Amino acid sequence: MNTANLNAVAALNRRYLLDFPYEAARQLESMSPDDGAELLASQPLHAVVRAWQVLGPDVARAILERVPEAMARHLLAEAEPIASVAVLAKWDESERERRLTELDAQVAHELRELLRYPENSAGRLMDPDVSPLHAGLSVGQALERLRRLKRHGLRQLFVVDNEGHLTGRVEIQDLAVAEHARPLREIVLPVLAVVYALDPQEDVVSILERQPITELPVINVDGRFVGIIRHAALLATLEEETSIDIQTMVGASRDERALSSSIFAVRKRLPWLQINLLTAFLAAAVVGLFEGTIAKFTALAVLLPVVAGQSGNAGAQALAVTMRGLVLREISLRHWPRVVAKEAGVGLINGLAVASTTAIGVYAWSGSLGLVSVISSAMVIAMVIAGIAGALVPIALSRFGMDPAQSSSIVLTTVTDVAGFFSFLGIATLLADTLA
Amino acid sequence: MNTANLNAVAALNRRYLLDFPYEAARQLESMSPDDGAELLASQPLHAVVRAWQVLGPDVARAILERVPEAMARHLLAEAEPIASVAVLAKWDESERERRLTELDAQVAHELRELLRYPENSAGRLMDPDVSPLHAGLSVGQALERLRRLKRHGLRQLFVVDNEGHLTGRVEIQDLAVAEHARPLREIVLPVLAVVYALDPQEDVVSILERQPITELPVINVDGRFVGIIRHAALLATLEEETSIDIQTMVGASRDERALSSSIFAVRKRLPWLQINLLTAFLAAAVVGLFEGTIAKFTALAVLLPVVAGQSGNAGAQALAVTMRGLVLREISLRHWPRVVAKEAGVGLINGLAVASTTAIGVYAWSGSLGLVSVISSAMVIAMVIAGIAGALVPIALSRFGMDPAQSSSIVLTTVTDVAGFFSFLGIATLLADTLA
Repeated sequence: MNTANLNAVAALNRRYLLDFPYEAARQLESMSPDDGAELLASQPLHAVVRAWQVLGPDVARAILERVPEAMARHLLAEAEPIASVAVLAKWDESERERRLTELDAQVAHELRELLRYPENSAGRLMDPDVSPLHAGLSVGQALERLRRLKRHGLRQLFVVDNEGHLTGRVEIQDLAVAEHARPLREIVLPVLAVVYALDPQEDVVSILERQPITELPVINVDGRFVGIIRHAALLATLEEETSIDIQTMVGASRDERALSSSIFAVRKRLPWLQINLLTAFLAAAVVGLFEGTIAKFTALAVLLPVVAGQSGNAGAQALAVTMRGLVLREISLRHWPRVVAKEAGVGLINGLAVASTTAIGVYAWSGSLGLVSVISSAMVIAMVIAGIAGALVPIALSRFGMDPAQSSSIVLTTVTDVAGFFSFLGIATLLADTLA
Repeated sequence: MNTANLNAVAALNRRYLLDFPYEAARQLESMSPDDGAELLASQPLHAVVRAWQVLGPDVARAILERVPEAMARHLLAEAEPIASVAVLAKWDESERERRLTELDAQVAHELRELLRYPENSAGRLMDPDVSPLHAGLSVGQALERLRRLKRHGLRQLFVVDNEGHLTGRVEIQDLAVAEHARPLREIVLPVLAVVYALDPQEDVVSILERQPITELPVINVDGRFVGIIRHAALLATLEEETSIDIQTMVGASRDERALSSSIFAVRKRLPWLQINLLTAFLAAAVVGLFEGTIAKFTALAVLLPVVAGQSGNAGAQALAVTMRGLVLREISLRHWPRVVAKEAGVGLINGLAVASTTAIGVYAWSGSLGLVSVISSAMVIAMVIAGIAGALVPIALSRFGMDPAQSSSIVLTTVTDVAGFFSFLGIATLLADTLA
């Protein structure tokens, strides 16, 4: 490309970074960090910061380590504090301190304050740079404050009394259309929800699951307003927490990430695997009860995984649908008889259908009508039990005040394995004459 | 209570409904519909509508059927259209028409228009009552329009040209602080994202996963602005979609709800159960290969579920953590070697730990050192394979353009069952001398 063309591309990139920071960030995330850093290094600082602050923390850190030092300092100082803090927290102590001491003293102080909040606390999600309004102002004075505010994209501001205690909120929409002479207090609305800076992020999500707020005010232990959690941080936290059940249901920890270290993963997962081992021994004990029958008919051992596999999967389907209903508040505990009746019905119909297919397969393999009737009837029974258990496990966990996802899968597998083995081998023992 | 007290309670409830509609709605959802309807029936209409429109659709419908007819008509007409449409869609054709004909003609027309959008389309989530601004206005004129707008809680307004085509957006924060004489176009920002009314709700969520917008403009096929999806609807949709993976990974449909009919559930789940049955036969075939060994040592049949159960659970943990990483965009496809290496490491360490416990249990039960060495070594191998497979299955599904959750659990179980059975029975056959 000639120089004129290159300049045009650079101008276009700058416009793109400024106008579509999220699109630009998603594209940077799909490049190698070296290419991303090279691309950003040639852009003006004010354009780069818009996209850099909305990158995922891993990519943001990788790029920061690769751009020129001056740009790195500028990004840490000018980006939203939540973005800078997320990256600073990823460095070790000495690297973090080195980076902080290079910054303007006041910025460094603010970032250090935020870093003092524990990881996964509300304080870490907070933007401290949104000043509250005083209740005694007029609308015109409040608009004057808003004009000087360095934050954009807000829907509301929060109102405090002389001691700094949070007392209300003002929608900017109301502020924009009110007479300038009116006292602010006439358009103040009650605060819908509030979180303490030291509260865990889960509390932020419980609030958000009850009401769709766009900004959440954060207070300290004295009840003083210290900042807000802005919309982007609320949304990211909601998404993280809502997807967590996939992990907790199989006994992986809420804190584990795809790129956590192996050691961290082992420490979190192993206890549940050991518990799962105990339940597996229970299932094995059921099989052991019928060792005599298996010794006579080894075909039973071959077909055992078929019955357990089907009831396990049917149970997992019932569990998943019921659990999601609880998470989305579509059902509450008092719906349990309806949910259980539904899942028993599904288990029966699916059980009959799957048993028919199984019957054909087993007859083709063994030619034994006795074996066909044993496995078909066991399959129907096991799948009805699996459906009922799949519905009851999360409801029961909720009822006893536990997270309905926590290790539900391990509990359920135990039930479905035991039910599958017991019905299959039990019926086989009863009908042993037909197998001979 | 005396009359004065009763009046005070009623006034308090009215205030509560007006100021904390979400809290009130969550409480109504936990009551029986009869109690909820009775409580609302005694309140003024304008207070009731605030809480009713933010109820879950099932509860909203149950309460609507129980309050006096006049209140029901008022609620359908005055609530946000998205709430009324959600309830209308739950009635059958004739009941829906009866309710609509009782409403004001213009309101009924608007609701009918919305009902024409397919279920699960962006149009169904849309609020058509947010008029756009014309690009030619001044800031003062735009504020005048904002003053007459019947919607509250907005962060931005959208801008259209003379043909009604969407051309930009204005943050109300910018509008509030700009000089009234300025032309609106000087503070217009580019539109970050847009959705067609007929697009599926999944598209709405993909947009939201890339950028944390608070209002999403909706256009029709001609590119004309037809409404916005407001924040509450965006949030609810995000939560629904983010929690969907729990269902799809076990082959339950995205559309199934906890209270869907049994027939609906069977229709959606049965195909996957039949596919799962085929894979279960595959696992059984592996066991069948070793029928001779099992006939000699029935203890192997007893311990089969232990090996398969452990590798299945370890694989499910690896799958869950990897899948969530993909969903939250913490990892992308190019991270696969790191993720696989991590999960192989976790499988090895957890495998060694679980194998030790298993060895103790099996020795106590059987007293056979041969059996102990067979099951321990099989366990380690099976758990390493399970970890690698748990990481690779969702990454491979993504790589081929599929949803990484879709039936991942069924694919994985097949791998872990086959790996568990093959390693356990294979080693047992090789070391048959030590078992005797």
